[in-house]
Amino acid sequence: MMKDKLVHLLNTCINHSSESDLLALSFVLEGMQNKLLGNNGYFIDGLLHMERKFDKNSCEITIPINPVLNNSLEIVHGGITATLLDTAMGTLANYLLPEGYGAVTNQLNIHYIAPGIGENLRCKAEIIHQGSKTMVISGEVYRSDGRKIAYATGTFFIIDRKINEA
Amino acid sequence: MMKDKLVHLLNTCINHSSESDLLALSFVLEGMQNKLLGNNGYFIDGLLHMERKFDKNSCEITIPINPVLNNSLEIVHGGITATLLDTAMGTLANYLLPEGYGAVTNQLNIHYIAPGIGENLRCKAEIIHQGSKTMVISGEVYRSDGRKIAYATGTFFIIDRKINEA
Amino acid sequence: MMKDKLVHLLNTCINHSSESDLLALSFVLEGMQNKLLGNNGYFIDGLLHMERKFDKNSCEITIPINPVLNNSLEIVHGGITATLLDTAMGTLANYLLPEGYGAVTNQLNIHYIAPGIGENLRCKAEIIHQGSKTMVISGEVYRSDGRKIAYATGTFFIIDRKINEA
Amino acid sequence: MMKDKLVHLLNTCINHSSESDLLALSFVLEGMQNKLLGNNGYFIDGLLHMERKFDKNSCEITIPINPVLNNSLEIVHGGITATLLDTAMGTLANYLLPEGYGAVTNQLNIHYIAPGIGENLRCKAEIIHQGSKTMVISGEVYRSDGRKIAYATGTFFIIDRKINEA
Repeated sequence: MMKDKLVHLLNTCINHSSESDLLALSFVLEGMQNKLLGNNGYFIDGLLHMERKFDKNSCEITIPINPVLNNSLEIVHGGITATLLDTAMGTLANYLLPEGYGAVTNQLNIHYIAPGIGENLRCKAEIIHQGSKTMVISGEVYRSDGRKIAYATGTFFIIDRKINEA
Repeated sequence: MMKDKLVHLLNTCINHSSESDLLALSFVLEGMQNKLLGNNGYFIDGLLHMERKFDKNSCEITIPINPVLNNSLEIVHGGITATLLDTAMGTLANYLLPEGYGAVTNQLNIHYIAPGIGENLRCKAEIIHQGSKTMVISGEVYRSDGRKIAYATGTFFIIDRKINEA
Repeated sequence: MMKDKLVHLLNTCINHSSESDLLALSFVLEGMQNKLLGNNGYFIDGLLHMERKFDKNSCEITIPINPVLNNSLEIVHGGITATLLDTAMGTLANYLLPEGYGAVTNQLNIHYIAPGIGENLRCKAEIIHQGSKTMVISGEVYRSDGRKIAYATGTFFIIDRKINEA
Repeated sequence: MMKDKLVHLLNTCINHSSESDLLALSFVLEGMQNKLLGNNGYFIDGLLHMERKFDKNSCEITIPINPVLNNSLEIVHGGITATLLDTAMGTLANYLLPEGYGAVTNQLNIHYIAPGIGENLRCKAEIIHQGSKTMVISGEVYRSDGRKIAYATGTFFIIDRKINEA
């Protein structure tokens, strides 16, 4: 019954779609599939088609640009850039912590520098300060032509896994 | 052919879904439908199921919380809260400008105060400063039990619609 | 001997001073006197000639503008505005805490809106969030013609008086 | 007459001073002298005993720590750290601009990481983004034992020298 509803929903979407809307639908369903097949850990990771890469003190995440991610000016929505930054910075924070500890974003400051356009966005997070209670982490986002589009810093609180608020 | 691919994608998703994953799929397809039927202006608006409300000097946007929006700690992803804030604040900025002008986010600073849980999130944006070149706008996000979960301020650049970078 | 050195220093200053420089010298020595006579708690309070006022949930500090506080553009130095903000916000944070606890600034974000000119600056700090480990506080600065020149938010860490780092 | 008042003020200060207060008075009068003899461009530079150093894409400013600069916790006041950061970052911004243009701070975000103690503070500013209308600049502050005490980023508006507000 739920399945029938989903198929019906998809058909309604298809019937109101332009060619480029169909590509958007495909982007979103592939994104859901990424999560459901276990390629990404949760839905947002999957929906943004995130690919992660680590080296010692940095975390890099790349996402393809798709009209689904754009705002009404047809550039990547600032919230998507923020999601990319928060994910890369938070992933690095968690990566650097010992077993049993986690990091939650306490504060995030983003400078938007240039419009997000082109084929993909690549975000690199690096550690600025690692303390016993907090970490300060930076993130910068580049588009496929090499231009920097955003620079951010954030404070992350170190928690043991049972507590998650300040 | 594209339609067949989409139906096939949906079936793969359904076959790997738990009951709650099916609800997530429904949330996302309804979100796409919101945009494709013209109820929302672009995909992110639709996918987040945004409902907007204006009065004189504020803009309020409400979104339902759904597992699709959560991070691995099962609270709303900080990037989603950022998207909600940036949208409400940017919408207010654009609303206050005369015809032919637009506002782009130049800088956004977010304090995360409490975890995003419950039924929905409500964001209220208000004007702090309206200049001739820039606007400073605040945004606060509340969850359904009334608790404030985030407070943000941002600088928006006023552009004429032909130029969109700093 | 130290006293002789101080008198000699003052004479050198006087000999190289214009009329307005003499007023600057007077402003600074009166500022030191404010602290030494116990009217202000520490030197910066005294040097800025701070006057504080409390009501329930806010702290207001006013300082006179003097050329000593200006930058090379002859407007109040952004660092002075920051000092005024940090002091008012930190004073409020400490005021709201029970005996034995203190607050230290963890993060401060300032929007500079208009130049600091005129007779004085008035800063009002208000509470945005009071948690068990952190507080989020806002501050706004007005000049004597009523115009807002800055808006800030900050995160303050609550410490017991023996610990002062994160 | 003004000179008599100044000498009288100094004597009052001396009479209420401990040994360490006399050193504070000396620090402040030497600071005023720095400006009046033309070693520093304006009073704040002088009062903080700033020493600047440039290379290609950075500006470094060092200041000695003195009790005058401390808050009630006997660590450097956050506003002094902010003044040091804003000065180094603004100096770099102005240094990079062609003749006739200036830079004013539009937004400043500071992460306070460790208490300012020890002999001196050294601040290094570097360019993150140089646009045609704005610049984004970072600054970090180290104390004499090598520990990082603050990290900041700021947006600077590029103005021609006749206009100084946004």
